[in-house]
Amino acid sequence: MITKAAIEEAHQRIKQYIHRTPVMTSKSIDEAAGCSVFFKCENLQNVGAFKARGAMNAALQLSPDQKKKGIATHSSGNHAQAIARAAQILGIKSYIVMPHTTAQIKKKGVLAYGGEIFECDNNIAARETMLAEVIKKTGAVEIHPFNNYEVMTGQATAAKELFEDVPQLDFLLAPVGGGGLLSGTALAAKYFSPSTVVIAGEPAGSDDTYRSIKSGKIEQAQSQTIADGLLTTVGVKTFPIIQEQVKEVITVTEEEIISAMRLIWERMKIVVEPSAAVPLASVLKSKEKFKGKRVGIILSGGNVDLERASKLFA
Amino acid sequence: MITKAAIEEAHQRIKQYIHRTPVMTSKSIDEAAGCSVFFKCENLQNVGAFKARGAMNAALQLSPDQKKKGIATHSSGNHAQAIARAAQILGIKSYIVMPHTTAQIKKKGVLAYGGEIFECDNNIAARETMLAEVIKKTGAVEIHPFNNYEVMTGQATAAKELFEDVPQLDFLLAPVGGGGLLSGTALAAKYFSPSTVVIAGEPAGSDDTYRSIKSGKIEQAQSQTIADGLLTTVGVKTFPIIQEQVKEVITVTEEEIISAMRLIWERMKIVVEPSAAVPLASVLKSKEKFKGKRVGIILSGGNVDLERASKLFA
Repeated sequence: MITKAAIEEAHQRIKQYIHRTPVMTSKSIDEAAGCSVFFKCENLQNVGAFKARGAMNAALQLSPDQKKKGIATHSSGNHAQAIARAAQILGIKSYIVMPHTTAQIKKKGVLAYGGEIFECDNNIAARETMLAEVIKKTGAVEIHPFNNYEVMTGQATAAKELFEDVPQLDFLLAPVGGGGLLSGTALAAKYFSPSTVVIAGEPAGSDDTYRSIKSGKIEQAQSQTIADGLLTTVGVKTFPIIQEQVKEVITVTEEEIISAMRLIWERMKIVVEPSAAVPLASVLKSKEKFKGKRVGIILSGGNVDLERASKLFA
Repeated sequence: MITKAAIEEAHQRIKQYIHRTPVMTSKSIDEAAGCSVFFKCENLQNVGAFKARGAMNAALQLSPDQKKKGIATHSSGNHAQAIARAAQILGIKSYIVMPHTTAQIKKKGVLAYGGEIFECDNNIAARETMLAEVIKKTGAVEIHPFNNYEVMTGQATAAKELFEDVPQLDFLLAPVGGGGLLSGTALAAKYFSPSTVVIAGEPAGSDDTYRSIKSGKIEQAQSQTIADGLLTTVGVKTFPIIQEQVKEVITVTEEEIISAMRLIWERMKIVVEPSAAVPLASVLKSKEKFKGKRVGIILSGGNVDLERASKLFA
């Protein structure tokens, strides 16, 4: 469905609106992990997350009529900012449905980009009901955070860049929530670095993808994790790609996520959100598998309330 | 005393042992500051601070006989790690006198590089007494954190790189503690970008450089600040250079330092220690002066106990 050419075209389309984020390495993390880790720093991306890619790719393909009505989405955070930013760049309106539990920094981000926020309860039914109302009222086009081929294609460009910058990766890990980043990453590997094995990192407290691959059908997320970017259940468009391309999901505990997050902050001197630390936690948990290998990791985002992070490190 | 050629030679000498750190920018910080700020990210340097430069430059110039005895220093933190790392690279011993109040992360860093730590009380007399004893016992060569021309020359290479990467800076700010970074930065500007005005940022709670420039002689630091890299009094070797080259010292409060530090963590997604946030705090305090200008800032380091930082952000 998503072709190699589609990813290449998406990359051209969004290039001027996103950062080509740096790849960082850390000697001390390599020593701790027993392998060579290459971090694709999407925490340094616009809006502080890879989500800027997919949102921009989708928004740039709206028709003039659609643009007049604006765009809408529901999101726990990073996609929300990405949609608001894409709308601001295009000079159109954006309507964002967010759970009231969303980190303040993410709400502030949406407002700063001129997005209009509609708060709802922190469950998927409440989000969808509220979004349907907003769309009914405004006529805006929904851009779903992950269950959208243009969004998935945009997210694939992060891994494409990593493959261009770091050849011969044995493994590439991405976190999985709804599966937009993971499916895009898996397709990028298939087309641009077929020898690279793509593995997902997932919180044990929200291991729907792990269970879905086992059972062969989409299982619901139980959503008990500090990795607030990974609370959602894998989508009907992302899951088939993940099922075909991703051979393994490594699940990690909350303690393992916090410990990996601390390692990244302390050793690399960069701020990542808990979700972004899940792949490193997965590598540290499965050292034998990665021993001596070249391992890519997509650091998905850096949007974290410092007060909240403080409590994790206290 | 320190020539242009000396800085160029130092840069060649240490090049293979240090990172050429990136220059980062932030649209939202530019908007907050009203000018274009270019951050030289020495928090991403080896040992997490610019100190790797000066220590390496000094250590590489030891005689074979001196190397046999090893190197020693007293330091509240980053220079300590830099000396231990330089010694480890050269395969020699290092002896580090540290106040017992030093952040754990800095002590761990020294031990990881094979340095031997001698703890003392947190005042300059206790440090110097302990260091004299260590040197008497071991015959090690002292490499002072700032009052050392080879160290100062090494620190100058950070600004040299920034000038190479970002032409036509109107201003360049560095924090000032003992003055090693500031004197090196001022000399680099004199030789490599003479139209750039060098300004120091200093905590009001340890404003010895501000007072020293006013009075024309070295005044003692009162050392009441969370910026633990800036507790020391400006040195007899650094002060004359600062006096000649640095026209202004901007002093900032503890609240201003924390606020600037938070801005860097939240917006740039990088970890900096309080000392490193002092120049941005200075720019934000004096917006009129910098309005519309191109402003360089040396982000001096990123070594901060996350527990300690947590309390600042709580």
